[in-house]
Amino acid sequence: MTDNTLPPLALSLGDPAGIGPELAAEAWVRRNAAGLQPFFVAGGASVLEAAAKQRGLDVPVIRISTPEEAAAVFAKGLPVLGTLDGVYTPGEPDEDGARLAFASLQDATRLAVEGEVDALVTGPVAKSRLAEVGFQFPGQTEFVAASCQVAPGDAVMMLAGPNLRTVPLTVHLPLAEVPDVLTSVMIERKGRITALALMRDFGIRSPRLAFTGLNPHAGEDGRMGDEESRVIAPAIAALQGEGIDASGPHPADALFTPRARETYDAALCMYHDQALIPIKTLDFDAGVNVTLGLPIIRTSADHGTAFGIAGKGIADPGATIAAIRMAGECAERRAS
Amino acid sequence: MTDNTLPPLALSLGDPAGIGPELAAEAWVRRNAAGLQPFFVAGGASVLEAAAKQRGLDVPVIRISTPEEAAAVFAKGLPVLGTLDGVYTPGEPDEDGARLAFASLQDATRLAVEGEVDALVTGPVAKSRLAEVGFQFPGQTEFVAASCQVAPGDAVMMLAGPNLRTVPLTVHLPLAEVPDVLTSVMIERKGRITALALMRDFGIRSPRLAFTGLNPHAGEDGRMGDEESRVIAPAIAALQGEGIDASGPHPADALFTPRARETYDAALCMYHDQALIPIKTLDFDAGVNVTLGLPIIRTSADHGTAFGIAGKGIADPGATIAAIRMAGECAERRAS
Repeated sequence: MTDNTLPPLALSLGDPAGIGPELAAEAWVRRNAAGLQPFFVAGGASVLEAAAKQRGLDVPVIRISTPEEAAAVFAKGLPVLGTLDGVYTPGEPDEDGARLAFASLQDATRLAVEGEVDALVTGPVAKSRLAEVGFQFPGQTEFVAASCQVAPGDAVMMLAGPNLRTVPLTVHLPLAEVPDVLTSVMIERKGRITALALMRDFGIRSPRLAFTGLNPHAGEDGRMGDEESRVIAPAIAALQGEGIDASGPHPADALFTPRARETYDAALCMYHDQALIPIKTLDFDAGVNVTLGLPIIRTSADHGTAFGIAGKGIADPGATIAAIRMAGECAERRAS
Repeated sequence: MTDNTLPPLALSLGDPAGIGPELAAEAWVRRNAAGLQPFFVAGGASVLEAAAKQRGLDVPVIRISTPEEAAAVFAKGLPVLGTLDGVYTPGEPDEDGARLAFASLQDATRLAVEGEVDALVTGPVAKSRLAEVGFQFPGQTEFVAASCQVAPGDAVMMLAGPNLRTVPLTVHLPLAEVPDVLTSVMIERKGRITALALMRDFGIRSPRLAFTGLNPHAGEDGRMGDEESRVIAPAIAALQGEGIDASGPHPADALFTPRARETYDAALCMYHDQALIPIKTLDFDAGVNVTLGLPIIRTSADHGTAFGIAGKGIADPGATIAAIRMAGECAERRAS
């Protein structure tokens, strides 16, 4: 499965005090069993060496100077591009670590935007730490979108697990603000971006989008809120008018049963917890965060830095491996 | 397991056009394998006979005239108490059916309130149909609470599956109203009722209650809403002050992973979908709705009338069987 003819994927290191480096090393060890496309990490060679050793892994780190070199050396060791580096102190984040994480993210993103790599897989960072060293974005997604000159609202987060894909149409805002922020125009726009991405990057010819309602039982015909008929239904109708297979608004609690999950390719949810609860209930260790609507492919593991367990050898590599594999699969589809 | 020394459980019929009657018959067929305490249905003898036949079940219906007779005849047939009856027309609800459902609910509830039976298991009804025949409650839970002279806010809904128990602290109201309806006093009161019920009826010596936050990431230290520190945390602190093992507010999306589910006995959630999504994602066919805080024990299957599949023999009996079993287990604990 390690195909030397494909351009590699770029991984950003993530916070060196978190679980990102050890999981990148573990993913390299499992590269063949997991069928991973060749990848390299942007910087952090000695961090990765130390993290692998701490985890009990035999991972030769191989310094490379151009992305193209990654594929040739990938069978022999974990390729690392560039001279960025730092000290590995698991569980003890500091400013130097945040600077290294930020620089690695900038490098890896630039390579993706310039077309030097097939896709970008970002490692976990601590947003509050990054803010201390000048990172002026709510999260990595917004940074990547800005690097691609895409408006933040047009970079759509999708959570993808083996059993389910969900899209939160609003993300990091107080629940009380959700009803006002939801508009038909926004729902329609994000629905369209999702449908196009499922076609282009996920190989689904006619994606089935299922929209949730905002209120209990999707409002029960207006008895508990009217956003369903006033805001959500018009957006669904507009998408249907363009030939997109959109349905809903469905009662959210009934949309994630095993039977219901077979009826759509992505569930588009009105707010953060409506989308994140079912994914994490089902697929906690294999959830991938994919950014749709960008000119580049970007994925990440759907978990944080987990400073509390970093360096202990117990962090689950499932989501990191799934994020790398999905990035490779999407890149292959986009290239074909 | 069919123990003739225990007082029986009373089932209400549910809407005769729904899946309630056929599932009551199916539960009787599976009584031994499922370890069910003797039960009878309040009325609907010919409805049950027809529903069983339509489902291909051999269920002798045995008319009884007092609850005590149920245990003695339970091995030979499905006991039915009282002369209430009607016509079985699966999938075609009408006013007569709603009247029968209402009357059966009244009878079964009265027997529970008067102590003639150990517990009440309600069958699925269509609320809008019941309203047409004079039922003036938002749902069966409120009717049962009123019959027990318990204030509606003190009858606490808990959803219980094999993998998870959740309590929605607000239930059937528009999402936009949730932030205003949540108060520390209400959260504390429902938390206390939940803890006491888990001790008394579920045999958990020191119940661990985990409260969700309202906002994404439980507000992330106030960056996305302040209800966590202003409303939820004070209620948790008050419960802890009484010696109750209460924790949170936790980020809701992280509270239902397999690992997180092991850390508590019930998750207390701020609104309907936060509590119902994880239960139905995991346990759709075995979810039980239990009403806590009542002088009687009351359970029901966590699904509706499903008129669309009534009479087709495909309705899953799992939740009905689980509701009957749980009612029997709770009754046994309360009696011991």
